[in-house]
Amino acid sequence: MNKLLIVGTVAFDAIETPFGKTDKILGGAATYIGLSAANFGNVDCAIVSVIGEDFPQAYLDMLSDKNINVSGIETVKGGKTFFWSGKYHNDMNSRDTLDTQLNVLENFNPIVPEAYKEADVVMLGNLHPFVQLSVLEQMTKKPKLVVLDTMNFWMDCALEELKQVIAKVDVITINDEEARQLSGEYSLVKAARVIATMGPKYVVIKKGEHGALLFHENDAFFAPALPLEEVFDPTGAGDTFAGGFTGHITNTGNISFENMKKAVIYGSNLASFCVEKFGTERMEKLSQQEVSSRLMQFKELTQFEIEL
Amino acid sequence: MNKLLIVGTVAFDAIETPFGKTDKILGGAATYIGLSAANFGNVDCAIVSVIGEDFPQAYLDMLSDKNINVSGIETVKGGKTFFWSGKYHNDMNSRDTLDTQLNVLENFNPIVPEAYKEADVVMLGNLHPFVQLSVLEQMTKKPKLVVLDTMNFWMDCALEELKQVIAKVDVITINDEEARQLSGEYSLVKAARVIATMGPKYVVIKKGEHGALLFHENDAFFAPALPLEEVFDPTGAGDTFAGGFTGHITNTGNISFENMKKAVIYGSNLASFCVEKFGTERMEKLSQQEVSSRLMQFKELTQFEIEL
Repeated sequence: MNKLLIVGTVAFDAIETPFGKTDKILGGAATYIGLSAANFGNVDCAIVSVIGEDFPQAYLDMLSDKNINVSGIETVKGGKTFFWSGKYHNDMNSRDTLDTQLNVLENFNPIVPEAYKEADVVMLGNLHPFVQLSVLEQMTKKPKLVVLDTMNFWMDCALEELKQVIAKVDVITINDEEARQLSGEYSLVKAARVIATMGPKYVVIKKGEHGALLFHENDAFFAPALPLEEVFDPTGAGDTFAGGFTGHITNTGNISFENMKKAVIYGSNLASFCVEKFGTERMEKLSQQEVSSRLMQFKELTQFEIEL
Repeated sequence: MNKLLIVGTVAFDAIETPFGKTDKILGGAATYIGLSAANFGNVDCAIVSVIGEDFPQAYLDMLSDKNINVSGIETVKGGKTFFWSGKYHNDMNSRDTLDTQLNVLENFNPIVPEAYKEADVVMLGNLHPFVQLSVLEQMTKKPKLVVLDTMNFWMDCALEELKQVIAKVDVITINDEEARQLSGEYSLVKAARVIATMGPKYVVIKKGEHGALLFHENDAFFAPALPLEEVFDPTGAGDTFAGGFTGHITNTGNISFENMKKAVIYGSNLASFCVEKFGTERMEKLSQQEVSSRLMQFKELTQFEIEL
């Protein structure tokens, strides 16, 4: 099996949407990435993260049951797990952060398990850029592909550190507003070109319900979000996309642009499930049959025949 | 050749965007629809509209040179042509109307030329619903396809009249906000389903820079807008889309869902040119070579190969 190393948060979330609210539930970028990547048969994936003693063993067991290696998830004695709480607006496209408690994340020193230091693909989930860099520095073999996710928070308060890690990755995934902020360009075509000069040869711009764009040199590829009757909770959709993207690349071991197009479709497909229930609920119970059947919907949604 | 009958405004526009502003230039829904439909070889199209004596003959000549029949464009003696003036905001997704002078449009009684009363396809461009209805009533043979475009203005001030015409058409094209207003549903999937119960078997929801969705029963198809370096002036993009959509349907004489998918792509493709210059400038000088080459870009942007 090919190896995928994931670094990111494993956390508690409390979420409020127009459809309801949750108490503290399982969350975190690495959790969503892992649950998404777990849908690919030829992928041996591991999470590097940190949790407190308050984190239920049942959550770790659930991840292990999905064949996600959790040996790189450090438990800090007496520590409390990272907690995020947010409330989505009626349009589900924007949200307010109600509370952020870094807790054990504050002094997180990631340690890559020996067995994953030669991983084929590395997915750097949203975290402080220096934590992301530290993971890269522990790799004993250059990975086939390094994918970075980040957010506006680091552009605001750690831009120079962020640029250091951006310079070292092959793919960056970022949302449209963040792409505009990072590049200073309004047009996404221009923004992608500017960001590519910072290092990543491939730039993925996520537009939420409006889909995702993949840019590479002068080529572009677009995947829509599946039109859904109802988006219940957008939390984790971007991470689930990243997990599908890196999961497919790891599964196939192929980093060509043509294969990245498929990776964008797999990512969009998996993200379409994530938003159907609160938190990780939908991803925990996803069947292969459901994934395949929705891929068929994606084909019908986007494929046409025009001879030129 | 197959016949396409277009009803809509032929007008003067004055446009301001972040890139500059124009004096009175050629505008109007029917103008954009006609210039777009003129790109299809097997289409004999005619415009039904009204203008004042201030309308330059050169504009009519330009339309005629594109093989657009202008015999149904009535000139009102001593009348002034419909005038619209608007200013786009920085994001180009919204605009303020600065001035609207209905002029000859106020008492417009459309008269369908004899030769087009058996047209294969009828495109009802944005106008008072009763003007649209009047055109339908003059048809002596049931058209293969009737397509309706409208806007929120008529939902606000002539909803019952609008519903009468909606009940009589096969396809409605409408933007996302209008679809939400007309249906009372936020989810576009649900909105399309509600609108379909009002009459149209096919619902096209235009999302501007975020592409267009086609709904029919439980099927959906999506075409993105081509990612452009710069959108210069969005005026007429929706009408150009409608002209490409109806142009392709008329050209092929095929009203299957599979062919409508292609029509959505042709419409999106032509609209991508429209926004590259002010007003009709880009559409007036468009070559077949440019259209084909950009269709190839659309294929590269959206087509992928996943075997299931």
